Formats: sequence, C-alpha cells, structure tokens
Amino acid sequence: MKNAVKREIPAELLVNGREAYKGNYALDGKEYTKPGPTVRAAVKPFENKVVENLREAIIRCGLRDGMTVSFHHHFRDGDYVINLVMKEVEALGIRDITIAASSVGTAHDPVAKMIEDGIVTGLQTSGIRGKMGEAVSHGKLKTPAILRSHGGRVRAIEQGEVHIDVAFIGAPTSDEYGNARGKGGKSDCGVLSYSMVDAKYADKVVVITDCLVPFPNFPPSIQAVDVDYVVVADEIGEPKKIASQAARLSQDPRDLMMAENCVRVMAATPYFKDGYSFQAGAGGPSLAVYRFLEPLMVERGIKMRWAIGGITQPTVDLLKKGLIECIVDAQDFDIGAVRSVHENPNHYEISTSQYANPMNKGAFVNKLDFVALAALEIDTDFNVNVVTGSDGILRGAPGGHPDASSGAKCTIIVTPLTRGRIPTVCERVVTVTTPGDSIDVLVTDYGIAVNPLRQDLIDALSAAKIPLTTIEALKDKAYSMVGRPDDLEFDDRIVAIVEARDGTILDVVRQIKPYEL
Amino acid sequence: MKNAVKREIPAELLVNGREAYKGNYALDGKEYTKPGPTVRAAVKPFENKVVENLREAIIRCGLRDGMTVSFHHHFRDGDYVINLVMKEVEALGIRDITIAASSVGTAHDPVAKMIEDGIVTGLQTSGIRGKMGEAVSHGKLKTPAILRSHGGRVRAIEQGEVHIDVAFIGAPTSDEYGNARGKGGKSDCGVLSYSMVDAKYADKVVVITDCLVPFPNFPPSIQAVDVDYVVVADEIGEPKKIASQAARLSQDPRDLMMAENCVRVMAATPYFKDGYSFQAGAGGPSLAVYRFLEPLMVERGIKMRWAIGGITQPTVDLLKKGLIECIVDAQDFDIGAVRSVHENPNHYEISTSQYANPMNKGAFVNKLDFVALAALEIDTDFNVNVVTGSDGILRGAPGGHPDASSGAKCTIIVTPLTRGRIPTVCERVVTVTTPGDSIDVLVTDYGIAVNPLRQDLIDALSAAKIPLTTIEALKDKAYSMVGRPDDLEFDDRIVAIVEARDGTILDVVRQIKPYEL
Repeated sequence: MKNAVKREIPAELLVNGREAYKGNYALDGKEYTKPGPTVRAAVKPFENKVVENLREAIIRCGLRDGMTVSFHHHFRDGDYVINLVMKEVEALGIRDITIAASSVGTAHDPVAKMIEDGIVTGLQTSGIRGKMGEAVSHGKLKTPAILRSHGGRVRAIEQGEVHIDVAFIGAPTSDEYGNARGKGGKSDCGVLSYSMVDAKYADKVVVITDCLVPFPNFPPSIQAVDVDYVVVADEIGEPKKIASQAARLSQDPRDLMMAENCVRVMAATPYFKDGYSFQAGAGGPSLAVYRFLEPLMVERGIKMRWAIGGITQPTVDLLKKGLIECIVDAQDFDIGAVRSVHENPNHYEISTSQYANPMNKGAFVNKLDFVALAALEIDTDFNVNVVTGSDGILRGAPGGHPDASSGAKCTIIVTPLTRGRIPTVCERVVTVTTPGDSIDVLVTDYGIAVNPLRQDLIDALSAAKIPLTTIEALKDKAYSMVGRPDDLEFDDRIVAIVEARDGTILDVVRQIKPYEL
Repeated sequence: MKNAVKREIPAELLVNGREAYKGNYALDGKEYTKPGPTVRAAVKPFENKVVENLREAIIRCGLRDGMTVSFHHHFRDGDYVINLVMKEVEALGIRDITIAASSVGTAHDPVAKMIEDGIVTGLQTSGIRGKMGEAVSHGKLKTPAILRSHGGRVRAIEQGEVHIDVAFIGAPTSDEYGNARGKGGKSDCGVLSYSMVDAKYADKVVVITDCLVPFPNFPPSIQAVDVDYVVVADEIGEPKKIASQAARLSQDPRDLMMAENCVRVMAATPYFKDGYSFQAGAGGPSLAVYRFLEPLMVERGIKMRWAIGGITQPTVDLLKKGLIECIVDAQDFDIGAVRSVHENPNHYEISTSQYANPMNKGAFVNKLDFVALAALEIDTDFNVNVVTGSDGILRGAPGGHPDASSGAKCTIIVTPLTRGRIPTVCERVVTVTTPGDSIDVLVTDYGIAVNPLRQDLIDALSAAKIPLTTIEALKDKAYSMVGRPDDLEFDDRIVAIVEARDGTILDVVRQIKPYEL
C-alpha cells in the first residue's frame, strides 16, 4: 500500500500492529501502557558496583545470543564504547546481537565486520555512516535496520517496541554506585540525554567511565538506582573528537544570503516576538542564522525565551549576551556548549524524551516556534531526505529533524538549490525521512517557497513583501542547472526501514544495485 | 503464622503473593518487572495544559468510583491540596476512593468524615494522625489501611502493588505545561521528592499550583512529559505550616546527655572517619546530635561527605561551615532547609526512590554509615514502634525510619527511658514498625544497650570504654520507675496493616476497644 507520503510500503512489513505513515498527527491521543524493565532488588546494603572489567560486567549481566544492547552517541566521532563492548561480545562468542544505538558513525567501522560475521544481526539507530552504512546498504545485515528520529527512538523504548536487555552507558564521570554525569573527566561530553531513557527502561545497566569520582556524583544524569555495574576503563573516547572546537561560522556569501532570508521569513511571521523559541540544525547555513538573528532581536528589543537542540557556540554566545534566556540541551556539539552546560545556570540538560518523544504528554518540540534545518534533498511534496546519499548509500541521520519539524510552528529548510552536480530540490527524494506535511518553508539560494498547506504563512510573508516562488519552480530551476538525475537502481531486498517519529513506516531503503559499467 | 518479629499474621492476609516478614534482607536479589502507566500521546503540538479549575481536571482525568488517587506531604501540616481535591471528588459524587498519600495528618481532618461516608474506602500512607487516625483506629475505614515506610511506598508503586490512577501534585511553582518545582512561590516547600515517583507511574497527573511561572520552569522536579493537566488555585497551602521556623535546639539536659552519648557511640565505631555519612531524625534528641558532632569533627579533622533525610537547620549550618560536603534531600522541615536547597549548589533534591526504595538497584540509605532516630517504644527484641500511641490509636508515621535503619551500618535509637508514666523500653511494643534486626544501638538517659546481633559494635564500644547495659535491664529499670503498663485491649478487626519496607507484613493494628469505665 502507498502511505501518506506516497511511498509503497510492502504488506509483509505491516504486521504486529505496525502501520504505514498516515500523516503528521494521525496518532495524536493514542493511549498505550508503558513497559517496565525487569530488575533485581538491592535490599542488602553494599558499597560498590565496580566490577573488574567490561567482560566481567557483560557476564554478570547475563548477555547472550539474540539480546539487544544499547548505546548513546554523545561522544560522537570520538566514541570508543561501542567498539570496546562489541569486542568483548565477540570474544565471548555471543552472536545475533541487536545494537540499539542513538546513532552510529565512522567511529564504529569495526562493527561492519561483525555484521558480516553474524555477531550483529539487528541495528536500530538514528544515524548510520561509514562502513556500517555500506554494509547495511549492501544487504549484509540479517534483518532490516530500523532508522528512527531521536524522538522516535525514545518513543519506541517508552512504548516497549524496543526492549533493551543491557544498556552500556559511557559516562565522563561516575561514582562507585553508578551516579553518572556527562560533565567532567577527560571524555567530557556535557550531557547524557539519550541514555537517560535507556537507563530507565533497560533490564541491566552498565556504566563505563574513565573517571571515577567520590560518591555521590551529583546531580546525576544517570541515577545509581538504575545502574547494575560500573566499569572503569582507560579511555572511553577521544576528547578532540567528542567536543570539537567551535565550527567557524560560514563566510560563504551563499550561506549568508540564505541565512539572512531565513531570518527575514522568521521575522515576517506572528511567532517572532519577545519570548519566542528556536532550534537551529548544526549545519553551516542554519547556524549562520544566529548571525542575523542577533541584530534584529536587539533592534526589536526582544529576547528568545529558550533555545533547544544539539547546542553549539553561537547559541551559547547569545545566552551569555542575555538575548537567549535559557538553553535546554539534549546534545553538545562543541567545546563551547560543553563548557556552558557546566558553568551557566540557565543552560539545562534534558532527556531525549523531554526533547522530542511524540508519544509522551508533551515534549519540548511541541512548543517550538521556529526550527531552521538543512536537507540533503527536498522534493516537490516538501518531503525531506537526510539519510541516503545521491548514490543510495546510507550515510546520514534523521536525528531530531522530523521531531522539531513536526513540533515547530514554523519549520524552515535552508539549503542551496544544488550541491555540485546534484539537485537538492527534486521531484522525488531517494528516501523520505521527514514527511512534507511538517515542513513549512524552503529557503534556497534561488528563492523561497512556502508549503501550500500553510496559506497563513504565505499571507504573512507576502504581507512582508518577501518574494515567493513555488517548490516546483525551484525544482525546475535546479534541473535546468544540473539536469534531471538518473533514477537510482535498487534490488528488491529491503535493507532499512525508516520509521516516522510515531512508529509508522515512512519509507524503506532497498539494497543498492552494484554498478554495471 | 508468626513472622520473623514474632507477630501473628492472619492467614487471610497472606494471599496474592503477600508474605509475612522474613527478616531484614530476606528479599535481597528478588527479580521483578516494573509496571508502566497508561498514558495518552500528545503528538499534536498544543500550548497549554492549564484547565479552568480542579473539577475540570478531575473530570478530564476520568476519575471514577473505585479509583486510587495520590498525594505528597511536602506541605506538611500546611497542606490544602488533599482537602481541595477530595471536596471536589465528593461534590462530583465519586465514591470508594483509595487515597495513596506519602503521609496524612491533622491538616486532613475533614477527610475523616469522608471515610465514614464511604467516599474514601482505602488508605495507603506512611503517617496517619488526627481525626483520620481516630477514624481508622475505630474501624470506620472499609478496608485496612496500609502503612508503609517512605521507601516502602515507592517500592509498592515501582513494583506495581499500588496503581495510581490520578496523581494530584501540589507544586509551589509550575509552568503552563506542567514543569513543576518545589522551589519558589508562596507555598515554597523546597523539594518534591515523594511526587517524583508518582509522576512517573500514575496514569494521569495533575499539577496544582498557586504560582504559575513562565515556561520552562527549570530544572523541574516533575517533568511536563508526565503531566496531563495544570490547575491554578488561589492557595495550595499555609506557608507558616509548610516551612516552619527552625525548631530551637533542645536545651533539656536529658536530651543533651543522650545526644552526647549518641556521638560517643558513633565515634567509637570504625565508621566515624573522614567521608562518613549520616542521617538524623527530625526529633529533638536526634537533632541535638549535631551539637556534639561539630566540635568532634573539628577536633579530629574529619568531614561528613553527605547528610541525608528530612533536612533541618542544623544540617544546613554544618554544610555552610564546610563540615558537611553535600546534602541529599528528600524533604525539608524548616525554612533553613528550604532556603538552602535553593541557594546552596551542594544541596541536592533526590526522589524518594533514590532515598530509600529497597527494591531498586541501590538506594542512598544502603550507603549510610549512621542514622540517629527516635522511637515511641522499643522492646527487648529491639523492635521499634513509631506509629501507635500508648492508647493504641494511630498517630505516627514510619516515614524513613525503617529504611534508614535497614540501610545504615550503625542505627542508633535515641530515646528517654520513660515519657511521663509510659515506659519507652518495654517487653513488647504495641505495633512493630521497624524490625529489631535493623536496630543496632539504643541510647537512653539510663544507659546504652547494643543489639546482641552486633557483637562487632559491642566490642568496639567496650574498647572505647563506653559503659553498656542490656535492653532487658533498661526495660526492668523503666518498669521499676513507672510500672508495667496494662496490655491494651483490641477487638479482632484489623484496621491497619504495617508493611515492612520490602512489602512483607510486619504487623497488624486491630480496632481499639472502647473504654469501659
């Protein structure tokens, strides 16, 4: 059957209550019962949860064939934890493991081999890149990978669709009882938002740290009451890759022009007023938006009440200047953000459930005024792809993109019309990762288009004399510049399922056909 | 059958998996699956959870006959919330309600009538006093009340024995989305530790505040993701009774002598060293312990790493002086404690699960070195009663007493030998509320006795030349002074079940016989 974004979803996937995507808010008001972990009571006092090493922790957790293990990606490209754990899993001869990670990337290239070897047979993640992306795209994983947004991952855990047998949580600091924080130590990542949910829903929880601190390590992101074992490792990450220097803000005139237009769009809506809220993607053009927001806020005498998302230096700068009143933080992308969440009392850590779970009683994204995001592709139905490259290979992450898009009153995609010889605006994205019904405005270097679903925004922008075009015209322009790309050729085999944030199926990714030259 | 504290537990209570008390750590290592609430997804963004009034919230929650509602007692004797809610429940004609409160007291005298009228037919609580205590003691409640420690209450919720249909959470401040804090406003109570658990396990959660603040109200004790409705009331409590002025420390020479002896006992154990941890009950003699701890810590050059419990001014004073490194706080008893948790970055709010749940993976009490507590009665098996008065009427609360006693390495009861004409040390307490196997030392104004189970402490105290006696000798002394009291006369009917913190039955309270003159 075709779902609400016109993608054919094979009937064999629509089993066990799984449905095809029916629209942005189709499941609003759905009732369900949250699951709970199976835990073991520590009635008798004991002093210490530190075990000798990671292998000991894995054995004590009873990890065995067919189980699901979880990880976070707050260490980003500097993460050592997944490889450390999976190496021990392999050494113990455990097979058929499903990895449920908030994201995986090039740091986990060694796991690609384990996919081929059947040690890893399931993968649930937001991002997938590098050799793991290639392995999955080429059909090496036994079961289709499941790709979810950050909010969608938490939803799946909190609805019981993903049951985590053992959560392995890399923590910059922990005490001997498992009170763990994202702050301090040598692998400082600022927050542990993704893992806050894993710790509450996993049967067994192992904290892995390279900096053991005195009890109690407070206030904790991960509470000792949820932790079974603590492992002290030499190094759990590569500091430089965990919190990089702040990205230099783009000086590319094209990026700056788009950013300025994005701010013009924002300023023309009724939502741009004192107390507004905002999220920017971590990409160059959306970050550049801050550069133009600042003078406009000063000029109008308004402040941003809260900024949210993955946090970067430009957000922190406006917090320091008092133009942002507080930051709610689910991930830190650079050293400035990590420092700020330590030092600034108005910079708060939140769990990913608070950030974006569409199935709780109201996540932060539900109260967002604006979000400015990038896209790999956007089609004439405003569907966005941020996962598959133009070669059909998995190399991206929905991340919070579908969540913020769905929640925000005004969702703006900021992207150049073409990248190299590839049109960004197209007839049909390779993979739908954010449905078009949650995208409101497209800002490109060749013009601005508003989703026809939002006549109110068309009126507001027109009233502000912002020249508008249509997304069809932008697509035509892109094709006139670089040509209409050939359709990719896929085999039948489904290698990944892209879930909408509410758990319905948005799209599938099929195995890429080998090039025939 | 007789349980491990020699109380006869009627067979009709030992059904549905319920067991009699088998000893302090008998259920250590027990595996169980936590329950989850049934919730409704808020996929579609909306701005505001504030409803017109409490009645509207109750109706929208679908509260109906036979359901269970929960409350916290952070407002102590100043609480208006239970009465406000129950008045509306009565007005709506809803009957057969079970109140699951962390405690109830004289502030809730109006509910006694609802017990007689069958509006309230179940009561689960720690404390019970005033007219509700009398109503229950005289057999007016349809089902036996269940009395639990603070840790036991959380355990029952987290094990699914108590299912909360609607949690009503009085909050000093909340935003329109339900992010609620114990801090600020006119009903400032400092922390919301008891409710942190209710919010996670109740199907419906209503926040009631008299101070609505801008979104986001951060960091929240109660997260908006768990809150269905917000009600703004005129007043949710009487400030003077919520956070009273600090109790003047006792100048009674008897109290001071006992406190000094308590500290001598502590100092004679191997646990009194730099980095130790401590909890004091809120009663006069146990609070006076701080007066003697301070100079000794200075003399020995040691610090307390953490203090825990209901917090009072003396704890806060030592935190300010640097003799305590941090406070972990589950309840505030006076203005000093409320101020401190606002202002002092080393004073932390914790949930009652973190504080004392015996069935999670390790609560704070498990790492306690010392606790000094009061008692209404203690018998020659070291069993303590803190609930029933010498007239057999319910007028107390186990509170954290059984939890800290069970967890601490050295549990010290500090109590005068007699109170008026009533012996405190006796053959058999009216009701066992903390089992004797978790009590280590008894300090009275007539001597010190150590539980024979703790030969190590007997040796340590003897080595420190602390004169010891036996609890039998202390009982004999008490009886020689005031006489052996007549046994109370009870009817057969069971009016309350006293659960051990692990959920087994420790004792029952029977209906008191009317006096026959």
